[in-house]
Order: sequence, then structure tokens, then C-alpha cells
Amino acid sequence: MNAKKKRLAILGAGPSGMAQLRAFESAARQGADIPELVCFEKQSNWGGQWNYTWRTGLDKHGEPVHSSMYRNLWSNGPKEGLEFADYTFDRHFERPISSYPPRSVLWDYISGRLQQSDVRKFIRFETVVRGVDFVRESGQFVVRSEHLPSGETADELFDHIVVASGHFSVPNSPEILGIETFPGILMHAHDFRGAESFRNLDVLVVGSSYSAEDIGSQAYKMGAKSVKASYRTKPMGYAWPKGFEERPAVKQINGSTVRFVDGTTAHVDVIILCTGYLHKYPFLPQNLALSGANTLFPEGLYRGVVWQRNPALFYLGAQDQWLTFNMFDAQAWYVRDLILGRAHLPSESDRNESIAKWRAHFESLTEAVEALRFQAEYVRDLIQQTDYPDFDIDAVVEVFASALRDKKDDIMGYRDRSYRSVMTGTMAVPHHTPWIEEHDDSLERYLCAVPDGL
Amino acid sequence: MNAKKKRLAILGAGPSGMAQLRAFESAARQGADIPELVCFEKQSNWGGQWNYTWRTGLDKHGEPVHSSMYRNLWSNGPKEGLEFADYTFDRHFERPISSYPPRSVLWDYISGRLQQSDVRKFIRFETVVRGVDFVRESGQFVVRSEHLPSGETADELFDHIVVASGHFSVPNSPEILGIETFPGILMHAHDFRGAESFRNLDVLVVGSSYSAEDIGSQAYKMGAKSVKASYRTKPMGYAWPKGFEERPAVKQINGSTVRFVDGTTAHVDVIILCTGYLHKYPFLPQNLALSGANTLFPEGLYRGVVWQRNPALFYLGAQDQWLTFNMFDAQAWYVRDLILGRAHLPSESDRNESIAKWRAHFESLTEAVEALRFQAEYVRDLIQQTDYPDFDIDAVVEVFASALRDKKDDIMGYRDRSYRSVMTGTMAVPHHTPWIEEHDDSLERYLCAVPDGL
Repeated sequence: MNAKKKRLAILGAGPSGMAQLRAFESAARQGADIPELVCFEKQSNWGGQWNYTWRTGLDKHGEPVHSSMYRNLWSNGPKEGLEFADYTFDRHFERPISSYPPRSVLWDYISGRLQQSDVRKFIRFETVVRGVDFVRESGQFVVRSEHLPSGETADELFDHIVVASGHFSVPNSPEILGIETFPGILMHAHDFRGAESFRNLDVLVVGSSYSAEDIGSQAYKMGAKSVKASYRTKPMGYAWPKGFEERPAVKQINGSTVRFVDGTTAHVDVIILCTGYLHKYPFLPQNLALSGANTLFPEGLYRGVVWQRNPALFYLGAQDQWLTFNMFDAQAWYVRDLILGRAHLPSESDRNESIAKWRAHFESLTEAVEALRFQAEYVRDLIQQTDYPDFDIDAVVEVFASALRDKKDDIMGYRDRSYRSVMTGTMAVPHHTPWIEEHDDSLERYLCAVPDGL
Repeated sequence: MNAKKKRLAILGAGPSGMAQLRAFESAARQGADIPELVCFEKQSNWGGQWNYTWRTGLDKHGEPVHSSMYRNLWSNGPKEGLEFADYTFDRHFERPISSYPPRSVLWDYISGRLQQSDVRKFIRFETVVRGVDFVRESGQFVVRSEHLPSGETADELFDHIVVASGHFSVPNSPEILGIETFPGILMHAHDFRGAESFRNLDVLVVGSSYSAEDIGSQAYKMGAKSVKASYRTKPMGYAWPKGFEERPAVKQINGSTVRFVDGTTAHVDVIILCTGYLHKYPFLPQNLALSGANTLFPEGLYRGVVWQRNPALFYLGAQDQWLTFNMFDAQAWYVRDLILGRAHLPSESDRNESIAKWRAHFESLTEAVEALRFQAEYVRDLIQQTDYPDFDIDAVVEVFASALRDKKDDIMGYRDRSYRSVMTGTMAVPHHTPWIEEHDDSLERYLCAVPDGL
């Protein structure tokens, strides 16, 4: 009765790829005829960025390490801002937990949702995509993949591609004058795994975004002698504790001495380049590859997901992110519905008009809270197109806005604050140990009711 | 008159790729009609491993960093063992220099030879090869490359491929029980750039080959509190100075405590994995990709260079190496002559027989000096096939053999010894500063006659 089943390649089994698998599984449970799914994942487990590894640089198969995760990374936004509408924290943990859990807890949560289903069988682990080509004649994509343990390569045809490989994995490392003379510990944030060895050292984080803020704070927490954060455009402006200060851009490095553009200098033992990440899709030809800056509404993506130059190819999670997990869901449900023919794809010119409208709006934003509201509006628009469980996005925005105020109020203490779930109404409970004193980021420690002393 | 010019793709402009360019240039100068050469190089300059970068992990374009070079790397074999027969150290420096020069001096030397020619125009810098496919029907290869600064991708046809991308760039990092609990400085030798920051720290190098030997020595030289080197099969066995000792394999890591298989433990602040490198050719389909261990005579390569499964594809420098630069020359001249039709490629079965003979010989070797003689014999065989300037390989072997004895005699002082050039008869002169006291590896410092104090 049916034509030949369509085939969909999902590139990556991180939070976005997992959302795409879950979206199709949810439709299949309701009886939909879904395409054949193949999810390619170069790591040996799912979770993407949340799949911590001690390795840096290249992994055991010689592939670039995907995850930028470090020991003692705790969420930097309240979990109430990223909760799944179809799988709540209450459902997973069966009790209230704190608002800012560590990496292991968040990995457990996103993993838990998929463990309720049978989608793991669609994932080819330790399999990397080497190349994607669009064959105009057949309207299909050829995907070349390599099974890393065996080295076997294969070419396969797909009707659709979902690029879910993320964009916080490939470091952007600018040249700094004299950096090659620096004799100390030097790495990009991507390769940072923990600040324990920075005790009693003078640390410089170059940058003023999330990585600089949190890695600088890690260094402070672990007993660095001093922490300096260097900004290019404007300081983060938090009420930093004693020993933590902001400086303008680095002008030059000469051995262990760093000179800033305001003429001040500092002795430095450690430099962490918190200078952001690149959009990088080495497996895509140029006409399919997203490029450019990390932004809330990248050029060339209709509704932030459909590749305008070839609408059979989609990107998930390619935006800068406030809402993360629930935004990936909103995107994945919409992409699913486009592929299933449930949602209608407008004409090219209508899509162009839509992109232009969203980008114009985006470019008018100046404040963090405006950016947050913009992303909320974007997610609301997506959710309205699908059967993803509706939720009060304005309330989620309010959670984030409170969190921003609390962070301004106490940069080293904000993770001890609690918020109320928009999905369940449950109030978070404080973690048993203040963040600044907690040196163990394991699930076991987090969930134990009466911890042993530090 | 001529058929369409053949096209040759050389993958990599390191010492091997540079040798291949030089080999063709040398023939062209003598009037030969050479193929169209395209050398793809992902770095922005030539020199491969010798092109030092402060970067680790991924480079500014998000590609894996090629070079494993570090500050204060000085040759670990005498330069008299790797001298070009057609471009001597005397010719380049116009005066005698020491036997163990630093990286900058060796880069200058290999660079200098090519600066005498016009081959740089054949190199496409910052251009990475993404894929190579053999098209059986036409007998040609399709090479997909990407110009990294622009992201432009191109597919081109070639008649021959020379893989000269090296095999000391992609780390082999085994799992070690508990390594994820280690809170200190941890990296593979590939990402090591200098030991200055290890001063007063307890350092462990895991491994017992060249990287462990030299990085351990760097740590000692730079004032580490202690250095331990951990071997799997047998110790290096040098007369290490006080504070430097060898231990058997690591059994388990628990925080900063390392337990060895002999039951001893040690506190460690720094771990460098000197656990070798992988053959890794992500741009090749499995039937063209060399794999396996680092050996003096890899499986599947006739005369160590011709890919047996497709003799239009060649590998340079794919062996474990004693002779390096002059061996790459011998290989490059021979590959050139095969491509030019000057040398005759035996039948597949004859090639198989030859491979089996060399491998049987190789497998009978037990001592380092035997391995060295084996490689000398291999190089002699290649040179006899071509017009590469003949030289006294037995004398080169004797230089290495003396160097091995001198190293046994004084592991921290062997680089201060001098040997005589086989090519020119020139005796090396000692460097103005003993290696253990020399903290500057620049060309300027090396060449200055009367150095300032340390």
C-alpha cells in the first residue's frame, strides 16, 4: 500500500538528536507511520555535550572530542527553565530536587526520558559521518559514515537529514600577540576539565560570556590565588569576590606577563581561552553548511530549523540558547511534522520573508531579558504548530528573569536559590551543600539525603 | 604530442610531502616532463610536524592540530643521521653546527632546501582533504578538499595519490582505570607544549618510548619535583638522574594517587600519556587506509610505499623511523620514478613476495641496532632504484650506533656530543650551551656566537 519507507538520518545523539528520536517515537506510539530512522553518534553513549569525558583534543579513535563538559559543572540556568513538557523532573526523580543540578543529574534526566522508549536501537554509536552529498537527480542525500572501531565505511541514501551535532564543540581561538611565548598552562575552555590544579595559581580567563564566568568561578572556588577575566566589549559586571577582577582585552603576552589594553599588566600562570565556539560541519559541502556567529536566529534557517537552500535538510539547536531542552523539543516536533507531512512548508519566498522578519526583530534587541523573551516567542511559535504539550512559556521567562537578578545579586551563591516548576508547580528544594563548598558532582552524592562531611 | 598531463595529489606538506615535491622538481630541472602537482596542506605553512604551534586539540579552523612539537624540543638523534644527500647542513648554514639542533633549526634546514626551488606554488595551504574515492571505471581518484578560510569545497580528479600526512599526529590514549578521577594536569604527549609549568610538581609520563624519554627529561630539566616513567613491557633503562625513576605499568588511578602493578604508589600532579600515535586517515575509505601498529615495515606496502591494494596510491614516511629526512627522500625519488615510468612496478604476486620477505626479516629483529640496520638496508634498496645521490649508509648507521651508546652513557648529556657528517666529512661543533642549561630553542639564539647569560 505504502510507497517505499522514507529514510531519515539524524546526525548526533546529544540533547537535540535525542529530542528528534523522542518526537518520532511519540508519533509512532500514536500510530503514525514514521520514516526509517538512523541516528549517527561518534561517541559511545548518548548525551552529546552532557556525556562527560576526561579526554581532551582527540578521542580514543582519533576523532575530535565532542564534549566541552568539565568536572564540577553545575547548570548555570535553573532547571525550571529547561524542563521537558512531556517528562518532568518530578517524574524522573520522584521527589523535588534543587534548581541547579550538576552535569551527572542532567545527563540522567535526559537519558531517563529515552529509556522509557525503544529508540536506542536507532542509534549507531561510535559511528562518525564523514560526508553528506545531495544528489539532485534523485532528490536524496548520500551519507558516508565510518564505524570507528572497525574502520568500515559505508555510503547510504537518505531522504532527509537532521543536523544535530551541536555548535559548542569546536573552539574559536583567536591569535593573541605573543601567546606563543606563554610558558604556563594554556587551553581553550573546550579542553578545560577542572580547576583543582589551579590552586594557588594566577588564572586568566579570556572572554566575558558563560565559559569565562563559570570557569573563572571554578578557579576561584578551587583556590586560585587570583582570577582575572578579560572582556573585549563590556565586563560581565558581577559583584565578584575578593581576588576576582575584570580587565579589558589582552593586548600582548610576554612570557608570564599579560598586558591589557588599559596599560595594566598581570602575572599569570594559567590562561583559559573562553573565546567561544565555531559552527563547524566538516561532513557538509559548503552549500549545506551553516556558518557565522552564535546567534539567537542564524541566517538561512526558516523557523530556525529548515535549511533554506535545501529544505530537506534541518538543523536542531543551532541557536544560541536560553531554553535548551524544551526548545530542542519544540524544534524536533516541528521538523517531525514537516517530514510526516503534517505541517505545511511555505514557499521559498514566504520562508525568506519569515526569516527576514525574525532577524529584524532579533537585531533590534539590546538587553538579556529581551533576548530571552525573543527566544520564548520563537519557541511558542513552534509549539503552536505541533502537538507538543503546551506550557506557560511566559512563566518560564519569569523563572529565568528571576535567576538573572539572583545572579547579579550573588554570583557565587545564585546556584543555592530555588524556583518553582512551570510544568508541575513543584518548588525546588535546596541542595544539601552550598555550591561554593560542594566539590563532588556525582549523581550519588547529589541524591544522598545526609551527606558525609566534605 | 603528449597525452593529457597526469595529475598527482600529494596529501601533506611536511617532510615527506616536501621530499616528494623536491623529487619531482629535481627531475623537472633535468628536463623531465612531470605531472601536474597539487599538494594539499591544512596548516598555513610547510614543515608538518616541525611547524610548531602553541595551539592544542583543534586549530583556528577547528581542524585537529597536526604537530606534536613542543618548546625546547631538540633533535633526539644526531643530525648526521638524517642529513639530505642533496642538500647538506654545511650548504644551508655555511658553517659547522652542533649534532643535536633544536626544532627551529631543523625546520629552517628542510625549509631552506625547498626555498632553492619554486615548488611552493604547488602547495594549497589551509586546504584540507575531506575525502578520496577511487573510480574504477576511469582508474582515477576523486579528491574532495576544503579551503578552510573560505569553506569552499571542491572535487577534483587525480591519477595518483601520495599520502604524506604522517602518523605521529593522532594520539593513541588507552583507558586507565580511574583516570577520570585524576584532578591534576593531564594530556597526551601530542598536546604537550612545554614543561615550564611542571616546576616543583610530581610528574608521571606513561610510556617507555621516545616521547616518555624526552618529555620526562623536559620535566626534569624544567625543575619538576619528581619524574616517574611507567613502562608496560620493559624499562628504558637509562642512568636517570636523582628524582627520575622508572616504574612498571599503572594499575589504577585514584585522585592524585597512582598505583603501579608492582604495588607501589605515588602522588602525582601531572600525567602525560606518552602512549604513541594512531595511523589515521579519515579522508580515505577503508580499502585505501593503512592501519595497524607503528612498525619498520607496515603490512600492505610494497617497498614500504606502494599501496598493494591499489598501486596508484602511495604512502611516504609510514614507517617507524630512524633515518627520517633522507629516508623520505629515498621513498619520494622511488615513487616519482614509478609515476614517471622510469621504474618498473613488479606484478602483484612479485610484490606480495617482496613484502613477505621484508616482513619476515623485520620480524626476526630483536635489538635496536638491528632495527637500525634493517632500515638502512631498506633505504639502500630504494636508493639503488633511482638517481638520488648515493651515500655511505653504513657510515650513517655507525653514527646512530655511537649516538645510542652515548645516550646510554649520559641521558641528560648526550645532546652535547658531536659526530661527523657522512655527506661532507664535517665534524659537528658543540652548541655554546649545554643542553641541560639551554632554555631557548630559537634559531637566533642557536646561531649567535657569543650568547648572553642564561
